[in-house]
Amino acid sequence: MTSPLINKFVVVGIGLIGGSLATGLRQRGACAEVIGIARKAETCTEAVNYGVVDRAYTSLQEIAHELTAGDIIFIAVPTLSVNSVFEEIKQHISSDVTITDGASVKGSVQLAAEAVFGAVPPQLVLGHPIAGSEKSGVTAANPNLYERHRIILTPLESTSDVHLDLVARMWQAVGAEVLSMSVEEHDEVLGATSHLPHVIAYSLVDTLAQDINNPNIFRYAAGGFRDFTRIASSDPVMWHDIMKANKSAILKSMDLFIDNLSRLRKGIEQGDSDYLLDVFSRAKEARDEFTLMLAKRQAAPKED
Amino acid sequence: MTSPLINKFVVVGIGLIGGSLATGLRQRGACAEVIGIARKAETCTEAVNYGVVDRAYTSLQEIAHELTAGDIIFIAVPTLSVNSVFEEIKQHISSDVTITDGASVKGSVQLAAEAVFGAVPPQLVLGHPIAGSEKSGVTAANPNLYERHRIILTPLESTSDVHLDLVARMWQAVGAEVLSMSVEEHDEVLGATSHLPHVIAYSLVDTLAQDINNPNIFRYAAGGFRDFTRIASSDPVMWHDIMKANKSAILKSMDLFIDNLSRLRKGIEQGDSDYLLDVFSRAKEARDEFTLMLAKRQAAPKED
Repeated sequence: MTSPLINKFVVVGIGLIGGSLATGLRQRGACAEVIGIARKAETCTEAVNYGVVDRAYTSLQEIAHELTAGDIIFIAVPTLSVNSVFEEIKQHISSDVTITDGASVKGSVQLAAEAVFGAVPPQLVLGHPIAGSEKSGVTAANPNLYERHRIILTPLESTSDVHLDLVARMWQAVGAEVLSMSVEEHDEVLGATSHLPHVIAYSLVDTLAQDINNPNIFRYAAGGFRDFTRIASSDPVMWHDIMKANKSAILKSMDLFIDNLSRLRKGIEQGDSDYLLDVFSRAKEARDEFTLMLAKRQAAPKED
Repeated sequence: MTSPLINKFVVVGIGLIGGSLATGLRQRGACAEVIGIARKAETCTEAVNYGVVDRAYTSLQEIAHELTAGDIIFIAVPTLSVNSVFEEIKQHISSDVTITDGASVKGSVQLAAEAVFGAVPPQLVLGHPIAGSEKSGVTAANPNLYERHRIILTPLESTSDVHLDLVARMWQAVGAEVLSMSVEEHDEVLGATSHLPHVIAYSLVDTLAQDINNPNIFRYAAGGFRDFTRIASSDPVMWHDIMKANKSAILKSMDLFIDNLSRLRKGIEQGDSDYLLDVFSRAKEARDEFTLMLAKRQAAPKED
């Protein structure tokens, strides 16, 4: 029997993102043991009972002494809580242990690491799985969540190749495709393709619920509205953190969107058929191309 | 053998909406014959070959002489083309024939009918199926499209009960639930729950495709983005027409949305955690309630 890729896999924050990676690695035999860390004792019990982790603790300190090279700590807490996990790591964790994270914003994690460690340590590989769900919590953990999904790693000059390679192989083990880009490009791209749509979905649902004076407004909404607003059911705290962590990129993309929408509003007001048909046709074409690209990716043979 | 509910079912505009009702009625034995009317001879041939209609013509005039009480004409052309169908009806169709439509805006159809007929004739029942798809054309026809979906009828003082009743039973025959409201309420509710989301989706995709200077922007978008932008793949001409036909209600809901989004933008800029958490939590709650409502509706026993 060959030994697994990872010895101890430690997941800090046992929610959808962390729990899914934990069960995914476990089911594929890619780690010897899964250890969970959660703030609440209740979550620890639930995670063990639910079979997502082998054992769980309320503090990283409790298992610090047993971690060494070949072990991975995966930080999967809300973006603005990464900071306090770094504090614990600095105090207790050996520099041999590979550390990575799954936060949706990378610039703020880099800043937090610099603030805590002085500089981003070679063992820390910043990353972000482009996968998720409007569901949250340990019971939403899904071992196949990352199958054929993309993982963006944003290594820095200081990142060690050994740790980078282990993290990349960890994600490949659960069926994901690993890509690499700069922290800045990541935050800009995600600001536009993920954070902006979430802001819009929250604001649209809030407009209908709060600002439109019709208590029956949702009664007549249909399936298109359900798909369109699915992401407005996402975890408010997680998204609050993302708004703060990626503020400048989000404001930039919001401004571009508000400008575009205001031009469209003017086109509608003036009955400018050419303008409306131009925008709608361009958007349909871009969106159809995107769907085709996703379909091709789903159909492509799996990379092993 | 009992005779079917409808004798001749005539569908003017053989696309997703018309074709789906035609095949739905046919498969359930609710009409004796389906006749299609399409502007292009090519569409007529395709609709016959595809089995959506029994026979098809490029003009309503060609079958006018054979239509009488118990027959239904369903107008399923883009909103702004309803006008020219009314002209043909006025010239050629008997006042015994039941006429209804599926346009997404009812105020503009009422105005068109008043312009052509002088007043909305008793035989004309305005209606709107709250169902659809980003797909279009006769090949997208789906006999079960209206199953458990809602149909809003907007009868006027002048509408005859006989015709209203036949139209309601037609929709029930394909598994839909029939509701009734005023033309004004319909246009306001749909402006907010359907037309506004479409404007936003088109504008978001256009912002990413045109305004953001990154050719790879769509490469890193994921499933949430796909769901969120599905409606931006809808037919541009159909939506152009809706924007013109329901202009005032759409502008009103756009203004409420742009105001809400601008307040949220300010909250993000100022790092106002309370405000962000309030909006996100309120929206999540409203959206979760909406999902529950849809789920209950799907689970409810079918009305026959």
